[in-house]
Amino acid sequence: MARRKSIKEIDTEFEAFKTKVGERMKELRLERGYNSYEQFAFDNDIGRAQYGKYERGSEDLRLSSLYKILKAMDISFTDFFKRIN
Amino acid sequence: MARRKSIKEIDTEFEAFKTKVGERMKELRLERGYNSYEQFAFDNDIGRAQYGKYERGSEDLRLSSLYKILKAMDISFTDFFKRIN
Repeated sequence: MARRKSIKEIDTEFEAFKTKVGERMKELRLERGYNSYEQFAFDNDIGRAQYGKYERGSEDLRLSSLYKILKAMDISFTDFFKRIN
Repeated sequence: MARRKSIKEIDTEFEAFKTKVGERMKELRLERGYNSYEQFAFDNDIGRAQYGKYERGSEDLRLSSLYKILKAMDISFTDFFKRIN
C-alpha cells in the first residue's frame, strides 16, 4: 500500500492545486470575453476583491463560491476540473 | 441569451448540489470498505464531526477540505464530480 502522505505534503500539494484552479478560472473568464476580472465579478454578483483572490490562488474558497462562479461561466465541475486534476 | 438566474435560485440549486456531494462522499467511503464515517475520518486526520456534516450535506466545505477527502479516497476531482454535475 502506498505510504500515506503527511499533512504537510498534502498542504503543499493543495497550494499548487489552488493556483491551478485560479489559473483555470482566469483562462475561462478570458475565453468568455472578459478582459477585466472586476467586470466579470460585478456582472455576476460576486465580490470583486474576493474574485481577484480566487484567480490569484490566494483564497481557500468555499464550494458555494466555486458553484456560483462555474454557473456564471456555464461550465460543469467535471469540465472545469478536467484540465486540473 | 438564457435569463440570468436570481441569487435565490442559485442558492436553492446549491443546496441540492451540496446534498449530492455528501451522498457521493458516502457512496465512495462505503465502496472503500468504511462502514463507519468516524473511522474513515479518524484514519485520515479529518475531524469526525466535521466530516459527518459534509456527508449530510449540511456544511459549505472549503476546497482544501474537499481536496484532502478526495486524496484520502484516492479519486480525482473530475471522477468525483462525474456523477454529480
